[in-house]
Amino acid sequence: MDSPKRTEIGDLGEFGLIEQIKKGVVIHHASTYKGIGDDAAVVDGGLHHKKLISTDMLLEGIHFDLSYMPLTHLGYKAVTVNVSDIAAMNGIPKQMTISLGLSNRMSVEAVEALYEGIHAAAKDYQIDIVGGDTTSSRSGLVISITLIGELTPDNIVYRNGAKEGDIICLSGDIGGAYMGLQILEREKEVFKSDPNMQPKLDKYPYIVGRQLRPKARMDVIYELGDLDILPTSMIDVSDGLASEILHLCRQSQKGACIYEDKLPIEKETFETAAEFNMDPNTAALNGGEDYELLFTIGQKDYEKIKNHDDITTIGYIHSSDLGEVMVTNNKNTVELTAQGWAHF
Amino acid sequence: MDSPKRTEIGDLGEFGLIEQIKKGVVIHHASTYKGIGDDAAVVDGGLHHKKLISTDMLLEGIHFDLSYMPLTHLGYKAVTVNVSDIAAMNGIPKQMTISLGLSNRMSVEAVEALYEGIHAAAKDYQIDIVGGDTTSSRSGLVISITLIGELTPDNIVYRNGAKEGDIICLSGDIGGAYMGLQILEREKEVFKSDPNMQPKLDKYPYIVGRQLRPKARMDVIYELGDLDILPTSMIDVSDGLASEILHLCRQSQKGACIYEDKLPIEKETFETAAEFNMDPNTAALNGGEDYELLFTIGQKDYEKIKNHDDITTIGYIHSSDLGEVMVTNNKNTVELTAQGWAHF
Repeated sequence: MDSPKRTEIGDLGEFGLIEQIKKGVVIHHASTYKGIGDDAAVVDGGLHHKKLISTDMLLEGIHFDLSYMPLTHLGYKAVTVNVSDIAAMNGIPKQMTISLGLSNRMSVEAVEALYEGIHAAAKDYQIDIVGGDTTSSRSGLVISITLIGELTPDNIVYRNGAKEGDIICLSGDIGGAYMGLQILEREKEVFKSDPNMQPKLDKYPYIVGRQLRPKARMDVIYELGDLDILPTSMIDVSDGLASEILHLCRQSQKGACIYEDKLPIEKETFETAAEFNMDPNTAALNGGEDYELLFTIGQKDYEKIKNHDDITTIGYIHSSDLGEVMVTNNKNTVELTAQGWAHF
Repeated sequence: MDSPKRTEIGDLGEFGLIEQIKKGVVIHHASTYKGIGDDAAVVDGGLHHKKLISTDMLLEGIHFDLSYMPLTHLGYKAVTVNVSDIAAMNGIPKQMTISLGLSNRMSVEAVEALYEGIHAAAKDYQIDIVGGDTTSSRSGLVISITLIGELTPDNIVYRNGAKEGDIICLSGDIGGAYMGLQILEREKEVFKSDPNMQPKLDKYPYIVGRQLRPKARMDVIYELGDLDILPTSMIDVSDGLASEILHLCRQSQKGACIYEDKLPIEKETFETAAEFNMDPNTAALNGGEDYELLFTIGQKDYEKIKNHDDITTIGYIHSSDLGEVMVTNNKNTVELTAQGWAHF
């Protein structure tokens, strides 16, 4: 007898698997405006509003390492990653559900520390915790959060609205969270080989903070509203800038050109990359978890934003046959490639 | 130095932990009508509707055992448990997000089988899959589903609306899913001791089906609508009838009296309990996962329902100082006690 066919998930890859899953999806309701394929789903929310739905699952050993991730920070970050998805649709977070799988290694005090971070985030982002599920886990800690956001129908920003000539903008700076992770991993190894060694994190306060305590850029959303700028497309930088630019371009059916010398990289990120003999631009382009916002604006809005302290214009949108490219510091033009995560 | 205080989750218990968690919850938005504490949360959904949000997390080794749970059934059941929560609020399911943590033991074909069940349930219950998160898991399979439902504001049924004199109704029959689980566990042990033995499940088609392929009772919700009956309170039977009656009574600040001889128990459930030397009423009162609906109605509605094939009236609501009791077959009155799950 032939044994049944077995294809490894790794052979198909993350995006292949998601494509496979999407195939079977059927939309029954007119109240579903946008399903899978953007930062959040969009559903009917009544006369003047639409609702956004975003969800993220974080698993111990995959997304976080409790040996250096304090539980309070983890709780805050678990909320942040969802808020960042709602922000990327130009929405305002409103309600969330928190589901936890708790291993019996965790004490009540540990759960309280986790919730301290969740509550702090709920306060900062003004989100109501409306439900959830708490169960035990045979393996590690599992955190699954679903966040409901809201916006007025005219204000939705999808990934697919970039137009030729639009200017590509990026909030904050990038690559820091990735370099922070390298430091934490290095100090963990040092500690494992000699538990009397104290981790040396003091030298890297900014990038370690970027990894452990990222903030979703709701401030940018509010400010864009104040400036009367409606981005033509937007996505949050969770997987790395290059990958996110490719998403925007593919969904908008456009190409993009960015400039290496425009990439906003903090001094500490830059210096730490050098310490690791790594090109800081690699960290900036392919390091994830910065949770900054990448968005495109029409040229008419450029004046409003060009001198902004915390928003950098890094390039522009062109036609799809010109591809997605970066002009390097020495004026070469190279193709942008994504290095998505490869957990499988 | 004193070591930090450590309280085991098991010492606090499930409900203690949830109480602890609820303490820190602050509600910021007027659009949040009902947070933690019912089958689903209720939030604003516009002029004529409200939205319901329900979420459930299922973990391998805790909630299911892949050695006897076919993945297709598991996918269907994962949706069912959420639909049942929306049904228990008298709502209609509309959209859901599916988050999966997949171990590398799972093949693409296995994920497809899981999704086959999810898609079948989405079709049967008319739900749009609008998003989710797919990641790898170092340990077992993790399924987290959040379901958005809808209803008109006048139709919400909470757990806390039962009035003295109301009649307690139960859809379908109970105890079957629990006895089905006993059979599956027994046959697993037999198989483990001798892999040449084939599991003997043919004798128990009904109860094994109740465990592996439960259906949420949306049909009851539609029928109650047709009969113009708005229950005064409702909950789904996921943890066991006794536990659910206590929930309704505590939240309504009432007591209840049910009759042992009214408990709807199928012949196969009854006979299998006998085979295990177990009181079938214990399975009915404390066995979970039947996903039937327990609800109370005003006496004015009794005539509409008294001859219903699939709804049984099992008792009535009385004042809280009379407690929650059951009149046994030999006319004794005993106190109802809950045996919730004790995963921790």
